Amino acid sequence: MPRTIGSHSDITGPRVRAAALKLFAEHGFAAVSMRRIASEVGVQAGALYNYTPDKQTLLFELMQTHMEELLAALPQQSDASVMDRLEGFVRFHIAFHHERPDAVFIAYMELRNLDPANFSRIEALRRRYETALEDILGAGSDQGIFDVADTKITTLAVIAMLTGVTTWFRPGGRLSLRAVQDQYWDMVRRMVVRAPDGSV
Amino acid sequence: MPRTIGSHSDITGPRVRAAALKLFAEHGFAAVSMRRIASEVGVQAGALYNYTPDKQTLLFELMQTHMEELLAALPQQSDASVMDRLEGFVRFHIAFHHERPDAVFIAYMELRNLDPANFSRIEALRRRYETALEDILGAGSDQGIFDVADTKITTLAVIAMLTGVTTWFRPGGRLSLRAVQDQYWDMVRRMVVRAPDGSV
Repeated sequence: MPRTIGSHSDITGPRVRAAALKLFAEHGFAAVSMRRIASEVGVQAGALYNYTPDKQTLLFELMQTHMEELLAALPQQSDASVMDRLEGFVRFHIAFHHERPDAVFIAYMELRNLDPANFSRIEALRRRYETALEDILGAGSDQGIFDVADTKITTLAVIAMLTGVTTWFRPGGRLSLRAVQDQYWDMVRRMVVRAPDGSV
Repeated sequence: MPRTIGSHSDITGPRVRAAALKLFAEHGFAAVSMRRIASEVGVQAGALYNYTPDKQTLLFELMQTHMEELLAALPQQSDASVMDRLEGFVRFHIAFHHERPDAVFIAYMELRNLDPANFSRIEALRRRYETALEDILGAGSDQGIFDVADTKITTLAVIAMLTGVTTWFRPGGRLSLRAVQDQYWDMVRRMVVRAPDGSV
């Protein structure tokens, strides 16, 4: 009999990943057993192994999926001005991470629990993302529009600042997400744009 | 017999806290048992309870100590100019956190494991620290030296950016800590200082 859309394994894989993401974010990777993930999904512990060989693979795949979705969603704006590209990056980073607080938390917190080979693969994806911002900063510096002493350091500073929004922003609070994006874009712009009279 | 300096309990308390800090940072609070902390210190599990009533109290005291040391070490510079006060804050924050990566990691990661009363007490200490920076930004804005649309948001952005240094800076790398402080001070200054001709 051919597998139909919505068959058991089609549905359970995403449910396993969603349960693992939630439990790892709540309790930490080391404190969550495969048995507990199975119980959250509502399957026998043994059945989990149809979907993942082990907990390490599950963690790695969650972090890999997060980074690959981030890279795939990053706006391609190669024809735009460096100012528009930088603004696009800032607004995108805030919106994307705001929607995934558990994945952001795990991406930072559970790096220590990746085995060395998996750590290297996640680091490579992270560097690809950082390079996207660094390229914008480098292009703007070459054009004399930005004044950035060290594009690598500025990249790390901007990303840390933008990711920090996930730790405090809540919808329905004093500011809309759009207002937060506006303010962060203003701060990043001032950090990197060359002053009109050459002063900085 | 009077207790002598260096008696058993004088030494073991700090060793219990150091072991808990190390193990919580390495494995996460939920994955570390009191028995494991005792084993790391080299005492019987029961002996731990001479130093702390439970694991929750141990976690809370680690986070409280971190925040109290941070507040106590924060330079008092009320007579200095707002520029000097802001520069002092930036350099201090980077240096203080650089020396305590485990405490910084736990302060962020294990907030979820504090019970509500302890969470409120840590949050209050954290707000006191944020207020120190917000006051500098507010004073600079009042004096027309800074141009900050929202001192609260700028405070959170600056602190996230500076704390991020702990995730990548390693002594002996491409840049000295002093060079990193210089670069971050330059970025923060540009983010907040009013442009001389009124443009931003």
